[in-house]
Amino acid sequence: MTEPSATPPPVSRRRLLGYAGAGAAVGAAGFAGGIGAARATDGPHGEGVDRYAFHGTHQAGIVTPAQDRLHFAAFDVTATSRAELLLLLKAWTAAAAAMTQGRPVGGGVPLPYDAPPGDTGEAAGLPPGRLTLTFGFGPSLFRDADGKDRFGIADRQPAALRRLPHFPADALQEQRSDGDLCVQACADDPQVAVHAIRNLSRIAFGSAALRWSQLGFGRTSSTSTSQATPRNLFGFKDGTANLKAEEPKAVDEHVWVGQGDDDGAAWLADGSFLVARRINMMIETWDRTSLREQETLVGRDRHVGAPLSGGTEFTEPDLSLKGNDGQPLVAMSSHVRLAHPTQNNGVRMLRRGYNFTDGNDDLGRLDAGLFFIAYVRDPATQYIPMQTRLSRDDGLMEYLRHTGSGLFAVPPGVRKGGFLGDTLLT
Amino acid sequence: MTEPSATPPPVSRRRLLGYAGAGAAVGAAGFAGGIGAARATDGPHGEGVDRYAFHGTHQAGIVTPAQDRLHFAAFDVTATSRAELLLLLKAWTAAAAAMTQGRPVGGGVPLPYDAPPGDTGEAAGLPPGRLTLTFGFGPSLFRDADGKDRFGIADRQPAALRRLPHFPADALQEQRSDGDLCVQACADDPQVAVHAIRNLSRIAFGSAALRWSQLGFGRTSSTSTSQATPRNLFGFKDGTANLKAEEPKAVDEHVWVGQGDDDGAAWLADGSFLVARRINMMIETWDRTSLREQETLVGRDRHVGAPLSGGTEFTEPDLSLKGNDGQPLVAMSSHVRLAHPTQNNGVRMLRRGYNFTDGNDDLGRLDAGLFFIAYVRDPATQYIPMQTRLSRDDGLMEYLRHTGSGLFAVPPGVRKGGFLGDTLLT
Ligand code: HEM
Ligand code: HEM
Repeated sequence: MTEPSATPPPVSRRRLLGYAGAGAAVGAAGFAGGIGAARATDGPHGEGVDRYAFHGTHQAGIVTPAQDRLHFAAFDVTATSRAELLLLLKAWTAAAAAMTQGRPVGGGVPLPYDAPPGDTGEAAGLPPGRLTLTFGFGPSLFRDADGKDRFGIADRQPAALRRLPHFPADALQEQRSDGDLCVQACADDPQVAVHAIRNLSRIAFGSAALRWSQLGFGRTSSTSTSQATPRNLFGFKDGTANLKAEEPKAVDEHVWVGQGDDDGAAWLADGSFLVARRINMMIETWDRTSLREQETLVGRDRHVGAPLSGGTEFTEPDLSLKGNDGQPLVAMSSHVRLAHPTQNNGVRMLRRGYNFTDGNDDLGRLDAGLFFIAYVRDPATQYIPMQTRLSRDDGLMEYLRHTGSGLFAVPPGVRKGGFLGDTLLT
Repeated sequence: MTEPSATPPPVSRRRLLGYAGAGAAVGAAGFAGGIGAARATDGPHGEGVDRYAFHGTHQAGIVTPAQDRLHFAAFDVTATSRAELLLLLKAWTAAAAAMTQGRPVGGGVPLPYDAPPGDTGEAAGLPPGRLTLTFGFGPSLFRDADGKDRFGIADRQPAALRRLPHFPADALQEQRSDGDLCVQACADDPQVAVHAIRNLSRIAFGSAALRWSQLGFGRTSSTSTSQATPRNLFGFKDGTANLKAEEPKAVDEHVWVGQGDDDGAAWLADGSFLVARRINMMIETWDRTSLREQETLVGRDRHVGAPLSGGTEFTEPDLSLKGNDGQPLVAMSSHVRLAHPTQNNGVRMLRRGYNFTDGNDDLGRLDAGLFFIAYVRDPATQYIPMQTRLSRDDGLMEYLRHTGSGLFAVPPGVRKGGFLGDTLLT
């Protein structure tokens, strides 16, 4: 992140030591020779790309090749007027446009030494880190618990934007669920992602408060064929059969909301829906099961990631193939069979989850798992039926506990001169 | 991490899909062409070094250039006999020697398909990530709460290995403090560090249980002049005046326990003491203070990291220099003045801390801060007096809350054929 751009040369030594003054004097050198330059990024992304455009038809951070680190945050709006909400979204737009391009918040406008700095500073000197900030609106932004129209937008609430239903075995914690607004910050460097959420939270002070947040230390999905498949904490490759950016037709069909999808919510066209699920893994129990059991539950082999019906990682599973014992090689209750498109009316989704570890419980078991994120065009036909099925029949469920949940409508990308949510609020 | 080495060629297809069999078949290709190869590392370390030796005079992970990510864990030993404790330490030695070299736990010994895999698998295909595993022994390993000798080693407890005293303003949580054993896992890739702690915890099952653990997403210290100085969550460069690996004399003087330091604990020679402090930062309050106030509290400027007495980042602070107002430029209650060696009988320490973020509290404030780690030769003369002073006089304390604490004796490095703690237990 570069420093504020040049201003009249500072006069006093005291000023020179200040943020803005020093930035004018040595900002460029600091960027080229400092930690930023020394730190390469560690993800297999398009070579040479060090940042993604903020403006566009769709928000970045969806089909963008999944960066390595995540900081996800959900906010409760405390503002009570539409005008205040607009101000917040405009301020967030400006900050997001700056930070994703490696510029500090409030960039270019040096502040007096006796004022708090515009940017909190911990990303100074770091490269943009391919930061993307993806924003969503929860059902509670449209109507409060009593059904009251909060900001004059209740009539534009998408029909599919409802609190997710209770699924079998859900063990949701309120303090990890829902929210009026959400922000998914993804970057190669966690310091860049954390810096972004912290500054958005700071900007929101007085109009929205952090409700919950989740750090993801490593991606569990590929969203581009240019990426190698990472592993989740069960030790399995995750993302093999994911929807990839290189399938634009399938992305159009399964991810982006279409113009005519919902009469009342035309503002959401080119947007999407974000499903977030914090899924704890009982890894100590898992680690005591045999490799045979693990592979049977998943439906793929652990080392290569090939379906148990044979082949290599990217071979299409043959769900009808049977073994000598007359049983299907990809077991009936295996995760991959139950989640496979042929078993779900052709439905697919773009998964973009992250491994997490948040300390441990009193019994010494790691509080770890998969922070599942998926983007779908219609949660009612894509996510909800599949989760219902998985929660009921998936053998993996014995080793999982869903502890957090959220559904958000993700507006389209911001056009130059526009702001986040302008299609909804203007 | 490579797969178990070759074994007789697998015969059945079923076996081929298994972990060990597939490893034999495609392990090498997986390592060279998989995600491991695609992922470069993101720290400015010695070029070309992708792993650090496990064996040596000192444990790795102390003067080793600080890697970017941390998973720290403290364990309670549940074993009651010395024999069991020995078995645990021997098993940990073998696992640490394997994992730090990028090999899986139990490497080379394929297990039956109906047995749980030797390694949990989520680091398969990843490079070693410059993983270091650094082990320590807490005071409670020597004597239980009633002073009882637990494993016949009470007479060898170092005099300086006592629970840290209560410091002014301490707000310690028991579930984040102390422990019989500790492991500091540092790596460039968090997945590698988390994998290591998880596998050590798995191996300990039945003889030690995870007491607390902490993820650190980004280093806040340089421990080598080859590294650029990173920033902590106050936005300041952290590690500038740290003890560096390139000062071997100072490291000998301030970090490594000497042969004659403690008659009763000669086993600790070439070891060190590890101080761990989980320090929450009140970042929302901090972010509302002026840049002037922030810099005054630290004693350095925020952008360049130079002392307020002038110069550049690595200029020695001039604590006597006064401004026009007759006040010292490096304020009396500033952190840097109070921590400076000239104010502390020449005492220095090797800081090796990490930024952390663990969600947020009910008021929407980030649970974030600095997981402080320091290595010292003698906590009684180095850490304790300095912390006492800082806790009492440091202006920064208004923005800090110490929520976790631990002191551990770090045995010397393991020689080939030896095991962790052999100088203590044999
Ligand atoms: C911690 C929980 C989960 C774990 C460990 C897990 C793991 C896996 C693994 C290992 C695969 C095979 C590789 C791949 O194609 O990515 C997979 C595939 C898949 N998973 Fe999950 N998954 C989890 C939760 C979910 C959830 C909640 C959903 C959606 C409701 C889901 C939907 C899918 C889909 C659609 C596929 C691709 C199936 C195919 O086309 O063959 N997963 N998952
Ligand atoms: C969250 C808490 C802390 C913050 C934000 C913090 C921040 C800093 C900063 C910005 C510097 C100046 C740059 C540098 O030389 O590294 C510094 C120096 C230093 N800090 Fe801290 N620190 C914290 C806690 C501690 C603690 C607990 C100790 C030890 C008890 C400590 C000991 C030192 C020492 C010895 C120096 C070098 C002083 C010198 O030689 O000039 N710090 N710290």
